[in-house]
Amino acid sequence: MKKTSSRLADGRELIYFDSTDVSHQGEDDRLLSRPQLTSELRYDPLLETWVIYASHRQDRTFLPDATHCPLCPSRPGHLTEVPDDRYEVVVFENRFPALMTGLADQVMQRDALSHGHSGDLLTERGAAGRCEVVCFTADHDAFFADLSPARVDLVIDVLVDRTVELARIPGVEQVFCFENSGSEIGVTQSHPHGQIYAYPFITPRTERMLYAANSYYRRTRRNLFEDVLAAERSDGSRIVLATEQWTCFVPHAARWPFEVHCYPNRRVPDLAGLDLDQRAELPEVLLDLYGRYSRLFDRPAPYIAGWHQAPIREGRRHFALHLELFTLQRAEHKLKYLAGSESGMDSFANDVLPEVAAQRLRGVPREGVA
Amino acid sequence: MKKTSSRLADGRELIYFDSTDVSHQGEDDRLLSRPQLTSELRYDPLLETWVIYASHRQDRTFLPDATHCPLCPSRPGHLTEVPDDRYEVVVFENRFPALMTGLADQVMQRDALSHGHSGDLLTERGAAGRCEVVCFTADHDAFFADLSPARVDLVIDVLVDRTVELARIPGVEQVFCFENSGSEIGVTQSHPHGQIYAYPFITPRTERMLYAANSYYRRTRRNLFEDVLAAERSDGSRIVLATEQWTCFVPHAARWPFEVHCYPNRRVPDLAGLDLDQRAELPEVLLDLYGRYSRLFDRPAPYIAGWHQAPIREGRRHFALHLELFTLQRAEHKLKYLAGSESGMDSFANDVLPEVAAQRLRGVPREGVA
Repeated sequence: MKKTSSRLADGRELIYFDSTDVSHQGEDDRLLSRPQLTSELRYDPLLETWVIYASHRQDRTFLPDATHCPLCPSRPGHLTEVPDDRYEVVVFENRFPALMTGLADQVMQRDALSHGHSGDLLTERGAAGRCEVVCFTADHDAFFADLSPARVDLVIDVLVDRTVELARIPGVEQVFCFENSGSEIGVTQSHPHGQIYAYPFITPRTERMLYAANSYYRRTRRNLFEDVLAAERSDGSRIVLATEQWTCFVPHAARWPFEVHCYPNRRVPDLAGLDLDQRAELPEVLLDLYGRYSRLFDRPAPYIAGWHQAPIREGRRHFALHLELFTLQRAEHKLKYLAGSESGMDSFANDVLPEVAAQRLRGVPREGVA
Repeated sequence: MKKTSSRLADGRELIYFDSTDVSHQGEDDRLLSRPQLTSELRYDPLLETWVIYASHRQDRTFLPDATHCPLCPSRPGHLTEVPDDRYEVVVFENRFPALMTGLADQVMQRDALSHGHSGDLLTERGAAGRCEVVCFTADHDAFFADLSPARVDLVIDVLVDRTVELARIPGVEQVFCFENSGSEIGVTQSHPHGQIYAYPFITPRTERMLYAANSYYRRTRRNLFEDVLAAERSDGSRIVLATEQWTCFVPHAARWPFEVHCYPNRRVPDLAGLDLDQRAELPEVLLDLYGRYSRLFDRPAPYIAGWHQAPIREGRRHFALHLELFTLQRAEHKLKYLAGSESGMDSFANDVLPEVAAQRLRGVPREGVA
């Protein structure tokens, strides 16, 4: 893998990742001023979580067509976020980031001392961190499921690189690599791409999983993720695909209509921890899995896919790297909405039994076999 | 308030609530068989929460027009869920409930003993509980914001009644009264109505708030909700409206673009705990608040409104009744979507600063003053 770093016109970093020894030409010739960025974090004392505020994101571009796509390679008359006229995989800092470097990470308590209480109820700090965009291919109309195994392998190399590099930014506590696909979930760019959030805190989801894993360890001296995987493999009714190194299953208590968790059979804390055997099988496993979501309904299902990794400093001992991939689509032309019970109480009701979802996903024909 | 209970053709309970001494005629003459109901709960060991499964809900009716609305009063040739040809407020058991009475609440562990681990990773039990529909008015085209103060007062009476009655069902731990409004959030019936879920567990959201309130009490000997309210009132920049008995504000760390929390100034655990002074002001407070969401954009904003109440047995000492009302709409014709960070990591990024949201909501003209 060859890595070529450069700067965009407004100072953001852009990095080409190539499988061969190519050189990248092309300065960013756009007149581009950095928008006024004002991200901050606020602490919710009732839920004990940080919320990110990024009001500059209100004005971000929404679903441009292919001729105006900022993620395509530049060509004469159409300068994009990628100055060169070709690329394999390219990463750049998000122009409208939720989190950003160079912010003071100083905590400010707006209600300190004045009300007789503990003075930490209105807490704010800079939203330090970094948000990156990962373009999987220069082909505007491709889906992740259409990539070649070699390209998927390169994408994973890139995610490993970013996980390691972003962990070095002072204040970053967790790196999350994810992909949103489909306008039904609010995707603003249809060009095939993922995103990386380098958070300055441990996310609520990860915090809860670590809490559960730690309690389980104290109770049993065993690893929770390993035992869940063993129970799913032993039960078998929710397995979607299994190889020597990987297992993909619909969890017994899945929250989304078609939700698959994908674990390496030998536990590792994060993408950088995968060994050569695990890495060798991963592209085919992912292409098989994503392909099933492409062909589950009459057109590719909208989905969210996220790599859950151990935080950088805490919880590395008990966490297990895994991918969670789910669609909001519950049937042909029907979406699952998060209404009162889900959005108000975080209590999920799911219309599709996990065994039924697994059976449906197992039964999706391989491409060309329909 | 007069309460008249009867049964629908398939055995479900229906209750009329009237402000005057009327009697209700009309048997349910429909040929209605109860659909096969198969709700169950499964425990997610990684998030330590219950997930509800109700596969019969896949086939529920979706946005019928006014001539086929099942929540309108019955009329010759169009028999609905409400047999009488008029009503003020009516409550009935949901035909497609996520939770239901009469289920064995027995816990079953599908992975017990066989894998050497603790045997509680694949846990299931019946989804005991009850789901009710509350029709606010017979007028198909009204919004909650259009109701008269007297009608809102009757609706609150009904919610108090249901909170008390549903708490008596064995196994029910928490009663949640909420309203989804707008097709953008998946509302399947546009007739103005709310819903009530009587859960057989404490919801994840409430559990986290109780955890925070308990820790805060141990640390400070003070009540978290009271101190948050005091801090918001003292700061003032996020207050939307305040009366002698009630305060409505955008929380300092709001997760949604336009989110308001509404608390009685004197803390009570649930709706049944409100005193006469608090009750007297509440209809006007709610109508004022909901009216602002009706007129914030060029058409009524889609919203979710939920009354957060103390659970029935646990946590009553530290909890504070409050309404949370929020819209997913972040600007004219723009929705907030829950994508990777929110749905994958429960980490919210919000484009609208709470002070800006509060200012916008404060500035919404009263009806007819535009």
